[in-house]
Amino acid sequence: MMQPNKHVYMSCEASFEEATTVIYGAPFDGTVSNRPGTRFAADAIRSESYGLETYSPFLNKDLEDVRIMDSGDVDITIGNKVKVLEELEETARTILNAGKLPFMIGGEHLVTLGPMRAVLEKYPDAIFVQLDAHTDLRDDYMGEPLSHATVVRRIHDLVGDNRIYQYGIRSGTKEEFDWSETHTVLEKFSIDTLKDLPGIIGNAPVYVTIDLDCLDPSIFPGTGTPEPGGLTYKELEPAFKVFEQLNVVAADIVELSPPYDHSGVSNAVAAKVARELLLSITN
Amino acid sequence: MMQPNKHVYMSCEASFEEATTVIYGAPFDGTVSNRPGTRFAADAIRSESYGLETYSPFLNKDLEDVRIMDSGDVDITIGNKVKVLEELEETARTILNAGKLPFMIGGEHLVTLGPMRAVLEKYPDAIFVQLDAHTDLRDDYMGEPLSHATVVRRIHDLVGDNRIYQYGIRSGTKEEFDWSETHTVLEKFSIDTLKDLPGIIGNAPVYVTIDLDCLDPSIFPGTGTPEPGGLTYKELEPAFKVFEQLNVVAADIVELSPPYDHSGVSNAVAAKVARELLLSITN
Amino acid sequence: MMQPNKHVYMSCEASFEEATTVIYGAPFDGTVSNRPGTRFAADAIRSESYGLETYSPFLNKDLEDVRIMDSGDVDITIGNKVKVLEELEETARTILNAGKLPFMIGGEHLVTLGPMRAVLEKYPDAIFVQLDAHTDLRDDYMGEPLSHATVVRRIHDLVGDNRIYQYGIRSGTKEEFDWSETHTVLEKFSIDTLKDLPGIIGNAPVYVTIDLDCLDPSIFPGTGTPEPGGLTYKELEPAFKVFEQLNVVAADIVELSPPYDHSGVSNAVAAKVARELLLSITN
Amino acid sequence: MMQPNKHVYMSCEASFEEATTVIYGAPFDGTVSNRPGTRFAADAIRSESYGLETYSPFLNKDLEDVRIMDSGDVDITIGNKVKVLEELEETARTILNAGKLPFMIGGEHLVTLGPMRAVLEKYPDAIFVQLDAHTDLRDDYMGEPLSHATVVRRIHDLVGDNRIYQYGIRSGTKEEFDWSETHTVLEKFSIDTLKDLPGIIGNAPVYVTIDLDCLDPSIFPGTGTPEPGGLTYKELEPAFKVFEQLNVVAADIVELSPPYDHSGVSNAVAAKVARELLLSITN
Amino acid sequence: MMQPNKHVYMSCEASFEEATTVIYGAPFDGTVSNRPGTRFAADAIRSESYGLETYSPFLNKDLEDVRIMDSGDVDITIGNKVKVLEELEETARTILNAGKLPFMIGGEHLVTLGPMRAVLEKYPDAIFVQLDAHTDLRDDYMGEPLSHATVVRRIHDLVGDNRIYQYGIRSGTKEEFDWSETHTVLEKFSIDTLKDLPGIIGNAPVYVTIDLDCLDPSIFPGTGTPEPGGLTYKELEPAFKVFEQLNVVAADIVELSPPYDHSGVSNAVAAKVARELLLSITN
Amino acid sequence: MMQPNKHVYMSCEASFEEATTVIYGAPFDGTVSNRPGTRFAADAIRSESYGLETYSPFLNKDLEDVRIMDSGDVDITIGNKVKVLEELEETARTILNAGKLPFMIGGEHLVTLGPMRAVLEKYPDAIFVQLDAHTDLRDDYMGEPLSHATVVRRIHDLVGDNRIYQYGIRSGTKEEFDWSETHTVLEKFSIDTLKDLPGIIGNAPVYVTIDLDCLDPSIFPGTGTPEPGGLTYKELEPAFKVFEQLNVVAADIVELSPPYDHSGVSNAVAAKVARELLLSITN
Repeated sequence: MMQPNKHVYMSCEASFEEATTVIYGAPFDGTVSNRPGTRFAADAIRSESYGLETYSPFLNKDLEDVRIMDSGDVDITIGNKVKVLEELEETARTILNAGKLPFMIGGEHLVTLGPMRAVLEKYPDAIFVQLDAHTDLRDDYMGEPLSHATVVRRIHDLVGDNRIYQYGIRSGTKEEFDWSETHTVLEKFSIDTLKDLPGIIGNAPVYVTIDLDCLDPSIFPGTGTPEPGGLTYKELEPAFKVFEQLNVVAADIVELSPPYDHSGVSNAVAAKVARELLLSITN
Repeated sequence: MMQPNKHVYMSCEASFEEATTVIYGAPFDGTVSNRPGTRFAADAIRSESYGLETYSPFLNKDLEDVRIMDSGDVDITIGNKVKVLEELEETARTILNAGKLPFMIGGEHLVTLGPMRAVLEKYPDAIFVQLDAHTDLRDDYMGEPLSHATVVRRIHDLVGDNRIYQYGIRSGTKEEFDWSETHTVLEKFSIDTLKDLPGIIGNAPVYVTIDLDCLDPSIFPGTGTPEPGGLTYKELEPAFKVFEQLNVVAADIVELSPPYDHSGVSNAVAAKVARELLLSITN
Repeated sequence: MMQPNKHVYMSCEASFEEATTVIYGAPFDGTVSNRPGTRFAADAIRSESYGLETYSPFLNKDLEDVRIMDSGDVDITIGNKVKVLEELEETARTILNAGKLPFMIGGEHLVTLGPMRAVLEKYPDAIFVQLDAHTDLRDDYMGEPLSHATVVRRIHDLVGDNRIYQYGIRSGTKEEFDWSETHTVLEKFSIDTLKDLPGIIGNAPVYVTIDLDCLDPSIFPGTGTPEPGGLTYKELEPAFKVFEQLNVVAADIVELSPPYDHSGVSNAVAAKVARELLLSITN
Repeated sequence: MMQPNKHVYMSCEASFEEATTVIYGAPFDGTVSNRPGTRFAADAIRSESYGLETYSPFLNKDLEDVRIMDSGDVDITIGNKVKVLEELEETARTILNAGKLPFMIGGEHLVTLGPMRAVLEKYPDAIFVQLDAHTDLRDDYMGEPLSHATVVRRIHDLVGDNRIYQYGIRSGTKEEFDWSETHTVLEKFSIDTLKDLPGIIGNAPVYVTIDLDCLDPSIFPGTGTPEPGGLTYKELEPAFKVFEQLNVVAADIVELSPPYDHSGVSNAVAAKVARELLLSITN
Repeated sequence: MMQPNKHVYMSCEASFEEATTVIYGAPFDGTVSNRPGTRFAADAIRSESYGLETYSPFLNKDLEDVRIMDSGDVDITIGNKVKVLEELEETARTILNAGKLPFMIGGEHLVTLGPMRAVLEKYPDAIFVQLDAHTDLRDDYMGEPLSHATVVRRIHDLVGDNRIYQYGIRSGTKEEFDWSETHTVLEKFSIDTLKDLPGIIGNAPVYVTIDLDCLDPSIFPGTGTPEPGGLTYKELEPAFKVFEQLNVVAADIVELSPPYDHSGVSNAVAAKVARELLLSITN
Repeated sequence: MMQPNKHVYMSCEASFEEATTVIYGAPFDGTVSNRPGTRFAADAIRSESYGLETYSPFLNKDLEDVRIMDSGDVDITIGNKVKVLEELEETARTILNAGKLPFMIGGEHLVTLGPMRAVLEKYPDAIFVQLDAHTDLRDDYMGEPLSHATVVRRIHDLVGDNRIYQYGIRSGTKEEFDWSETHTVLEKFSIDTLKDLPGIIGNAPVYVTIDLDCLDPSIFPGTGTPEPGGLTYKELEPAFKVFEQLNVVAADIVELSPPYDHSGVSNAVAAKVARELLLSITN
């Protein structure tokens, strides 16, 4: 008998019960100040993934050897950021409570606040690891406390000093950079010190967020706020071997905006980052 | 001495004091359910206007013979729709209180609610005239009462039955079409009955809103929710001669999304609609 | 428990057992002589359908009132047109044998040959009704008998004279037009005589194929071989009321090539044609 | 023995000696005030022509039955408009002196002045027939007498009153429209009176220029200055039957700007207009 | 007397007799599993070449000092891959038999099989040197033995072990990588060992194939299956100095898909790779 | 009272009197031999600048701490390159005479000749520092002495030998490279020796021109003549620290062509280069 059409990230065809990692999309871009469009990211990554192989020669691992489920995009309340964050938090909670690893595909960066709240509920001492072009440390953006530009500051509200590690940062106000000096660990322009992280935090539970605009716009033009001077794809790759050594309990990739890259390359990059990140954190 | 760069809709170089009509942009697209991007519309229309002439052979009028000011985009609070509506209402109020006609360039259609509230303050019996592909008559959209899909219903909350005239409507839920039968005047598929409106409402104050997606996507692809089967540009043109006969006290054009039309044609269409509408309602 | 992501044409969520019509995609474009890309059409139409409503004000019918299943794209053997046609034929046969109506989304026009063979097995006297810009009546194309440019000639091989009705044709070789005079019923440039078809063929079983390039490239730029001078969307609409009167036993829409229209309008047009066609032929 | 690659408009493979019509490209866009890019038009039309058939069902004529040569683009002196016009004039003169019909593919509209000067040398009483969105009747543009916006005024300098027929005009300054009332024959918005032209001018030699922006931007977005409200392709078609009745001695099509239409539809439209115009004027 | 328009890669204007290298296009993309469009590559490279100089400062050589002919695209049988390969083989044979070097512009990678067969006829001990992102070593693809994903395996069928050198490979199934360990020489991720090849194979006849997707998608987005993590253009450049030292008897560049890069950069990259490759192998 | 809309590069809101640096646009692309479109660059850079921060972490400087004015685009005489150069020269003269630093945004590279003439009037011993992909040293281009391809040769006419420093050059004719050996200082392929310049020229007045195509097309696709093999953004960055040490009296950035990069990344790159260059040369 014929079955309804499924549309999942390649090879991620496990049932919820079988899965150790569960993918979900967060199609929200309601607070972006520049180009919107990240709402279409998760669907684009699913489609594009079929241009890749399931096997990663870099990690020597294969998606066919792990059990991942793709649950689709969360049905969010468009235009209401408070509710959206609750909906995303609740999705992550469901996955965490089932003993699985939540893997979110944004959306703009504000979405990270939802699952991070669920993670802190289960792992109160979780560490937040961010790869990004932007600090996202503003206290408010045009008077609004909840914004893609304030999300890491909101997470700092929850975790306090020395629990946030920021890498690859190359844009922010002078105030943000000054503030970070006493409140977060921040590496400017590159991610070279990321390799030291396992030695520092050991087995602590980790939330990994990859704002894909940490990559240079040459390889990742499809994003809301392109910032020249970022990582090449090859410069990003070692991060995945670091993540293999960490105790990652939840992760996300955010800020792909498909409408701004007609070549589809940004979709392919995001799909490959998703594969490497899934392989590096899924057992 | 050299002056800072100005960027105004062509020929609209009057001072606020001189002007009889004042243009302002509403760069808001926070509740759209499909493709965002209308935040860039007003700026795109200003740039594109210089590809047109100031003279309209259709209306035999010239922008050089009227006094219009372009005050730029309102500095809105991104991500907070309630505040945005207040900010747009306040801008319209300032213009109305100075005895001038406010002319807004959206943005998504929800923005219309702001200036309509200011108009009703000054003209409690104002009529609402809408050219659109969509009814926009939902009572809520995914639980939210303020949305691009509910804006005309919200205006009905303020004006009641028989004060809303809708033309060119070709999309909506069955419930919306049914509801409209007893609450608004609605013409499906075309705008043929618009020509009768002056005879019906006489000199009553009128708010005109043109959702540019009333046009067929063939001539206006750059919009969030393209709906085939709309008006050609030539089918829209007679509307401007009708507006000349009405007592229009405020107007807007909405739903141009420049990122979705790389040819720039949608920008040119919006710029020409702006010219014809400005010429038809400015004294 | 969370479920795997489904991706179906809007509202077509019936099971195979419940459904009276079954959608399937035919992602094949291997014989096109000009721009390829139709392989991506079915997926694009599914995504785009959510920008439409389920209700058609033109037909006054609603997808929510019928039972349709979307079975996804057939898993075709890329690069082997003979096998592909067999695979599509087999899919149609499965649906027909279950007493349901097969609804295919191409793909290039050659794909029509597959389900037409299955239809003729069940309905040997079936009539073939084609809306198209091109005759598709070549006997071979560069020596190849199976091609998007020969598909209707191949169908004539199966059904013989006076069983093929062609509408909207505006391109072909002189030889094709001459040949059609004695072998098919062909209307040039428009579809005005389509309304007479129910009177001519009565209740005979009908296969309907809509090559979307029957539409003018102004409203449908996303196709392999754009041919100016076609139908507006409004000129196409009456066809759906004709199809309501026919005994349609299978149907398809073909030749959407999403990569060639970045605005997404062609996808929206195809999605709306699919809705109207589904509503007009599904009981 | 293998031959160097040729690239000609489809089927136009006659030698210069055999040909009765000779195509040449004018890749110049140096005076445009809005979007440049028409320099790429002739090459794009050649490539796109292979998506069409050589047979026109509208005119019931076939390119395979006439003898046309495509001589490629003239090697112009970029950045020097005076020299460019001389080079185009000389090319037309060479063709005219050989008793053949010159057919130019622009380029911006200024290029028309070159071959028109050569035509007037051979046919001092030639009539100028223009299909266009714009009057092109300015006396100067920003102080410059030679411009795409002044080209028809420059031609009036050569031919005087009542020798210029303008159709489809929908844009210009008030001064231009006023001036045209006593100096040219001008139809606004449509080309309905073109059918009367054979009765008026009889067998007089005619130069036909089609500025493709006479077409609506819905069907022809790829142009420097899109002006909504133009002709559909079907509204343009009758012109070709009028040209069949005129004594056309030279012709051109101008103002296709391929970079502004990624769908390629504008190229296809231009290629089809070229076919119909070639068929209607070539003996 | 005016001549028909030629369209050749810049400066490649030798006659067949004069030429030492002969360019031909292979406009075939019939077996691609992802984005098609390489059929348009050769024509795009010809047009784009005029934005480059004939002189290479990197190689200090000039196209004006060598004699190359561009014979245009082979007239292939669209939709029949077996015939297409025969046609390409025959073209290469003609060139080889005349004592010249065949230089093919694809097309998808399957096309390489055609000329490689002709090369092996003349040089039975030829070495195959491949720069590529993908192994192309599958034994079949969805049951088909002839595919862009199997082409190097088919070549292995002809040449056997240790005659195939693969560089820059970063994608494949685990099975392909495992198989390569005993059958080909394969360098992952980079081309660093290419410089050792002259020392290994000496003066053996060599077929060079550059699948342009060996380049990173940042510099080469216009390809069917973009794979992040590839070579920069500067990392590719040393390869040309290696090719100068080899006895290259035939070469190709494949997998440019112009429709997927509207900026034209991919065309420019392909045109420059063609220039450097032509200069490095032509005497 | 409401004010007319201003459109300036972010934060550059000083009055002419206050400003120490004055920005002006040069919307001219009349002599380009390949893709035109740089006329739109200055406006695009202004709009895009709002996606950046005013603070540069690389230079640790902030636009909010300096006083810059943006005077908009010069009102040039389109189609007359001699006049255009005079108009740009006059603008630069006005700024220089007021004791301020002129900062021009092109336009094609020929525009540099205008302000350079004004600079030499005030600083007869000025040094010309050029970052570029192309030599621009032709003596004429197709017979024309004034061209984007000859502009540096024209500057050599004014300053003579050893006053022109060229970096990053990777394209030119053999003659140009040969000529440069005795007339200019030229570094091929990279800008490594730029760091030595302060030691060589000390406090001499300097004109800095950055042809943005010195960057690799991967990060800067939006330009008229993309030339693979250029600088990454990070490779360009050290130049700004060199410029801090020089006595820069005027500067420009040229050759952004916005229509060729729909992602907007090229605009973002140009806007960031403008910020770094403004910060490095403004006191």
